[in-house]
Amino acid sequence: MRLRKRPGALEVLRERPEIVPQKPENMRGHWTVDEPLHVELGTGKGLFLALMAEKYPSISFIGMEKMESVLSFAAERMEQQNNVRLIHGNVADMQDYFAKGEVNRIYLNFTDPWPKKRHEKRRLTFPAFLNLYKEVLSPRGDIHLKTDNEDFFTYSLEQFSGSGYCLKNLTLDLHAHEPEENVRTEYEQKFAERQQRIFRAEAYLPE
Amino acid sequence: MRLRKRPGALEVLRERPEIVPQKPENMRGHWTVDEPLHVELGTGKGLFLALMAEKYPSISFIGMEKMESVLSFAAERMEQQNNVRLIHGNVADMQDYFAKGEVNRIYLNFTDPWPKKRHEKRRLTFPAFLNLYKEVLSPRGDIHLKTDNEDFFTYSLEQFSGSGYCLKNLTLDLHAHEPEENVRTEYEQKFAERQQRIFRAEAYLPE
Repeated sequence: MRLRKRPGALEVLRERPEIVPQKPENMRGHWTVDEPLHVELGTGKGLFLALMAEKYPSISFIGMEKMESVLSFAAERMEQQNNVRLIHGNVADMQDYFAKGEVNRIYLNFTDPWPKKRHEKRRLTFPAFLNLYKEVLSPRGDIHLKTDNEDFFTYSLEQFSGSGYCLKNLTLDLHAHEPEENVRTEYEQKFAERQQRIFRAEAYLPE
Repeated sequence: MRLRKRPGALEVLRERPEIVPQKPENMRGHWTVDEPLHVELGTGKGLFLALMAEKYPSISFIGMEKMESVLSFAAERMEQQNNVRLIHGNVADMQDYFAKGEVNRIYLNFTDPWPKKRHEKRRLTFPAFLNLYKEVLSPRGDIHLKTDNEDFFTYSLEQFSGSGYCLKNLTLDLHAHEPEENVRTEYEQKFAERQQRIFRAEAYLPE
């Protein structure tokens, strides 16, 4: 998600500590009582998360985003939602924010494909990240990935399978037979209007 | 590969015992001396295998096919090729023909996708088959799959990952950037003329 710097973005975040905890590391292991915890990485302006939170009120959602400008819009959007919180932080530091097995599902929605080989380490399905997710995912946890980028998609499938994940519910054209439960992100809506293919996969760890 | 019954097909096979061994089970463990062994499952009329054999004279190729009518055309085609043999038999009986670790590569080219759920067991990437391949594949062996059928492709990727295989060199549109080393099958040539997508994957067992 690319965006001009928004003046006052950090203040917007700081004024909403119930949505954007100032010290999210203090929540580690205590984000929920009983309900499932779903985390979106790179949550942007938060449309997907807001729609999901409305649709599934008994699930606790967290959006992670490192860029305060976009996250400030998400923070404003979530004011009516009591089952969403946001973390202003880096995915690489996930283990500071989540205890082992605390996360039931991770969403990777149209994350930056970093097409250049020399940027491979930044892709959120680079093996180092996939190993990180293993640390925070619960035993039956899974990862839901959507992308419009074919190369990033095949790269991700290769990395999942090479890192011990199993694949399920693969689709190479999500909107051709869009499942009723699919919640579109802002990007996804734009791609759909341009008739571009959306690729989707779920990955889970075998028991 | 669907074809009318060819009169005299069995005779064509019987007259060429050096290409189509009458008792292939006697060759088990002795198909090659030093050279790699590549096996195509469902070899049809054998165009792919003939082209591969010409291109890679130091590899030993075997085509398996249960239908004698199509296999008889392959048998005639292979008369000039001294590094190809054919097995008239079922994939399910593979272990009768190949010793543990004897096969270095398996090709699955446009095999029947058996789209109906009740026919799933017949798909050559059904888990029972994938486990069978493990028995005959060498430690660094792999499976090369090509198909025009999107559902069979995603099904196969899911089954590979669920059966302990890793994936590599995935492509969702083989002819968009066709690698120089790609050898087209008869089907593939037809699909290419109709501008249909060809999907390709390689699967291997982690060491």
